[in-house]
Amino acid sequence: MRPILTAEIIAVGSELLTPTRIDTNSLAITARLEEHGIRVRAKAVVGDSRDDLGAVFSSALVRSDLVVLSGGLGPTDDDITRDVVADTLKRPLREDPALVERLRARFARRGLQMPEINRRQAMVPDGAEVIPNPNGTAPGLWLEQDGRIVVLLPGPPRELGPMMEALMRERLAPRSGEARLLTRIVRVAGQTESHAEEIARPFFEGWTSGPRPIAVTTLASPGSIDFHLTLRSERPADGMARLNEAVRALVQAFGEDAYTDDERPMEHVVGSLLAERGYTVAAAESCTGGLLTSRLTDVPGSSAYVQLAVIAYSNQAKIDLLSVPGDLIAAHGAVSEPVAQAMATGVRTRAGTTLGIGITGIAGPGGGTLEKPVGTVAIAVEGPWGSHVRTRLLIGSREHIKFWATQVALDDVRRLVLRERQQAR
Amino acid sequence: MRPILTAEIIAVGSELLTPTRIDTNSLAITARLEEHGIRVRAKAVVGDSRDDLGAVFSSALVRSDLVVLSGGLGPTDDDITRDVVADTLKRPLREDPALVERLRARFARRGLQMPEINRRQAMVPDGAEVIPNPNGTAPGLWLEQDGRIVVLLPGPPRELGPMMEALMRERLAPRSGEARLLTRIVRVAGQTESHAEEIARPFFEGWTSGPRPIAVTTLASPGSIDFHLTLRSERPADGMARLNEAVRALVQAFGEDAYTDDERPMEHVVGSLLAERGYTVAAAESCTGGLLTSRLTDVPGSSAYVQLAVIAYSNQAKIDLLSVPGDLIAAHGAVSEPVAQAMATGVRTRAGTTLGIGITGIAGPGGGTLEKPVGTVAIAVEGPWGSHVRTRLLIGSREHIKFWATQVALDDVRRLVLRERQQAR
Repeated sequence: MRPILTAEIIAVGSELLTPTRIDTNSLAITARLEEHGIRVRAKAVVGDSRDDLGAVFSSALVRSDLVVLSGGLGPTDDDITRDVVADTLKRPLREDPALVERLRARFARRGLQMPEINRRQAMVPDGAEVIPNPNGTAPGLWLEQDGRIVVLLPGPPRELGPMMEALMRERLAPRSGEARLLTRIVRVAGQTESHAEEIARPFFEGWTSGPRPIAVTTLASPGSIDFHLTLRSERPADGMARLNEAVRALVQAFGEDAYTDDERPMEHVVGSLLAERGYTVAAAESCTGGLLTSRLTDVPGSSAYVQLAVIAYSNQAKIDLLSVPGDLIAAHGAVSEPVAQAMATGVRTRAGTTLGIGITGIAGPGGGTLEKPVGTVAIAVEGPWGSHVRTRLLIGSREHIKFWATQVALDDVRRLVLRERQQAR
Repeated sequence: MRPILTAEIIAVGSELLTPTRIDTNSLAITARLEEHGIRVRAKAVVGDSRDDLGAVFSSALVRSDLVVLSGGLGPTDDDITRDVVADTLKRPLREDPALVERLRARFARRGLQMPEINRRQAMVPDGAEVIPNPNGTAPGLWLEQDGRIVVLLPGPPRELGPMMEALMRERLAPRSGEARLLTRIVRVAGQTESHAEEIARPFFEGWTSGPRPIAVTTLASPGSIDFHLTLRSERPADGMARLNEAVRALVQAFGEDAYTDDERPMEHVVGSLLAERGYTVAAAESCTGGLLTSRLTDVPGSSAYVQLAVIAYSNQAKIDLLSVPGDLIAAHGAVSEPVAQAMATGVRTRAGTTLGIGITGIAGPGGGTLEKPVGTVAIAVEGPWGSHVRTRLLIGSREHIKFWATQVALDDVRRLVLRERQQAR
């Protein structure tokens, strides 16, 4: 039996061709396949059209060792995947009596009688094997023909996910090649994309050449540049050693700017730093409207260090709850470094925490001035060993600016804590 | 010239075949095409392989009136789209001197000399027309052959978006058919998916039958069931009348549960209600960690009504800042209706707002007990005309529970304000 090296993924369903829906199943499927070195050559989304699915499926079958189809296994007329695959492979559909019984029993457990229409879900192409679906009525199917493997999975992610995992473990992994696709991610803050690329580029030539090339893709998001390093290797231990060496070099080149090499988002990195040291934190947010604290509290266990946040949208709230002096606001404006600093001090004092964060800015689209345009954000972080305040001009939509500002604030907390640690040594 | 009725979208780039990246350009392209009744038959993602792209492109060309390719127009060896399209259509590539000059000028404006490698971006297949790219170096291309149209657009969304809009307006709209794809969305809160389907289903038969069928897709997310109604019509005014009638029927069937029929998310609906009436709001959040207020402040202009929020993760903060009696917490536990109510009262009193919201719960994964499992959330909303408090048991991940709880709280605010309005009549 030849190993499975390449795959193609086809999502079936007209709803996936609208502007509001996206096929995310292919990401979960790709993740599983890549772990075993099976390369996804292409993917497609096809509507509920027999002709279109037939054409796309046939051409995938020519190119790839494995074709995974998701969706279109329901009981209605729109559900065409079973039929088209059976037609294309010239395998007649037959009702599987055991499957009918299983479906009936599933309905019976919920006190229901199986609708006749659901019998269609028990139709199986000749020679196909049934893949059990613990979370739904549509079973999966496994077919082999001319050295190719075809897998049919139901569309709902909570049904497909566990089935794909079982499939990988029990059937696909044993038949994949020796190769593994190894991945590591380095995330960098405080750099523009082009500047970060400039720092990283000198490494690329060494990595991409030679017998075990490392592929690098760069992903930029507000406040983070992520380098994804992947290496295809038949000897995973050697491959991982090479990859780790590359990660080490990159992390060293970026120094403090490299905030993680283990895939964690910024709020998890900051959370771990705080938890390790037994530090607590309080935040005073204005333009970010609670998003900073929401991100901090996305981390399980964050109640150990997040004590309090005050979202003071109005000046009066800044004065009353955060003890920001009214004349400070009058002198510098609500969006200013002195006010951000006073907010950080105020919330830290009130909560009695190790760290205090203050953010004030203009998220837009209204409220900007010539002097302080939309996107102006002042961020202060205060700890027992000192404080840090700065103003950034961020660009984008309101939501974009909000997110970016929280990213900068979290990064400032991270740096302040790291530097304190260095000083303490 | 025959009208453009069907289209196919191909995204090019190996990075789009990894588990961390998704092709979102196709959504923007689909939205533009649908507005002019051009139906997307299928879409595909192909890596940087000449063979694979050639095969996928050729078969799309057979099926569809229009093929839109995105990505792979950069200056490097990996950028294969120009070459493959030229090969497939048998049109030799020639350097366009005007384009070389435009590229040089673009670099010169930034004080840079054009790298020689960028000349590749000036290579144009015989007979192709150049689509200007105001936001980048890669121009788009427009080709016609055998009654089919092929469009090449660069991959970065901020370059592709404006180009696609201009293309639609100037070239595609005039050649699309009479048909328009009309869409309306009704969003429902406070219902399970199956219960909402039960209420909506009796309408479906009348809608999907007849000469102008309305297609319905249902999209469930935490705290919202969305019905997307679409109708393809050659007489948009008649079509829209039919669609509006269907929306009216659905909204009537759901009554107060139908929170919007104009695509706005819940926080915008609530924001408009508050702004219209001149109401102000303050929130006391615990388990949602600021997410409720962050959603409220995602709405432009929300500073008019969002006054204050206190995120009181610790009991001490609940006592100090929200005046929650310590013995109330001792008697009922921090996650309880009396404490949620006291939080709402406390923050409303402190901020002097029309409305106060209190949320306390267990977002997990830790912290659950037999009596109060993970997902238990108590939500209180208080206004001058009364208050409302209830406990919900939500399921899912920590982030899922956080979001769902904010959705329930926003919905409770909406209902309380609506009912007050009814009472006031």
